[in-house]
Amino acid sequence: MRILGIDPGYAIVGYGVINAARGRYETVEYGAVTTKAGEDFGLRLLEIYEGMTELIETLRPQAAAVEKLYFLNNKTTGIGVAEARGIILLTLSQAGVPLFEYTPMQVKQAVTGYGKAQKHQVQEMTAKLLNLPDTPKPDDAADALALAICHGQAAGSNVRRRLIKINGGISNVL
Amino acid sequence: MRILGIDPGYAIVGYGVINAARGRYETVEYGAVTTKAGEDFGLRLLEIYEGMTELIETLRPQAAAVEKLYFLNNKTTGIGVAEARGIILLTLSQAGVPLFEYTPMQVKQAVTGYGKAQKHQVQEMTAKLLNLPDTPKPDDAADALALAICHGQAAGSNVRRRLIKINGGISNVL
Repeated sequence: MRILGIDPGYAIVGYGVINAARGRYETVEYGAVTTKAGEDFGLRLLEIYEGMTELIETLRPQAAAVEKLYFLNNKTTGIGVAEARGIILLTLSQAGVPLFEYTPMQVKQAVTGYGKAQKHQVQEMTAKLLNLPDTPKPDDAADALALAICHGQAAGSNVRRRLIKINGGISNVL
Repeated sequence: MRILGIDPGYAIVGYGVINAARGRYETVEYGAVTTKAGEDFGLRLLEIYEGMTELIETLRPQAAAVEKLYFLNNKTTGIGVAEARGIILLTLSQAGVPLFEYTPMQVKQAVTGYGKAQKHQVQEMTAKLLNLPDTPKPDDAADALALAICHGQAAGSNVRRRLIKINGGISNVL
């Protein structure tokens, strides 16, 4: 299954695409859609819309994992991030890509086995799981790849749970 | 000048279009783009996107006035409102409609002359300024019309200020 992870923002939208199969992960592409500070905010949203639409058309993910915003600490920045996140959800909806949301704690738990792991630990484990020589840059792309892995694991265990229910036994098909 | 006022939300997006000329206002159309509770959130954003795009194409506003989100009291609802607001800003940007943002206090001040006016006072004054027999419904559309009036006044005074600067005298051309 091809999964697109997205770390929302209005200056930097991190993305990472992986193929997940049988608990193994393969990196397809990662990077960031960026917009310039000081530019008209509506134009920045338009750039995010166009960048994300192109990414989805090119990389054709079967599922998307996006960070859940559950708390806006810095209110002014938070509103802008949520506005940009709306654009991201729109592009996924327009392309018919199913959306899954995860909290940072769920991502840490999935990648490192510990919900309160530090950022560098998550990044190192992400690189390891994806057989990357270094931790991916920018950080937003690393976060996006971790989100994709998190969904790969969640989807994998859902498949396993469904198989248990259907067959009464465990299979690792995904 | 044709002004589109918008009161952002994800369940109800209120809108109101007016023509503003020489300090007088004429109602063109008002109403709401609505989405159903319980429906997939991505689909709701898509409906807002399509509804707003159609509205802008049909009514061809020359400027848009949108309520400024400066405070998210209810965090969960607030994030959804900001996400929907992002979609609204995107549709305006795609159509090249200049965006102006006003706080509720600025709208109250512009419509009633008092920044702490009550909701019903703003609605009654909005109806009066637009020669409407009753206060517009839903409330979100009334708020949107008040935003449009607020921008009409702000743009009017900008024109006047510019004319003062250029001609050394006041003209009420707008």
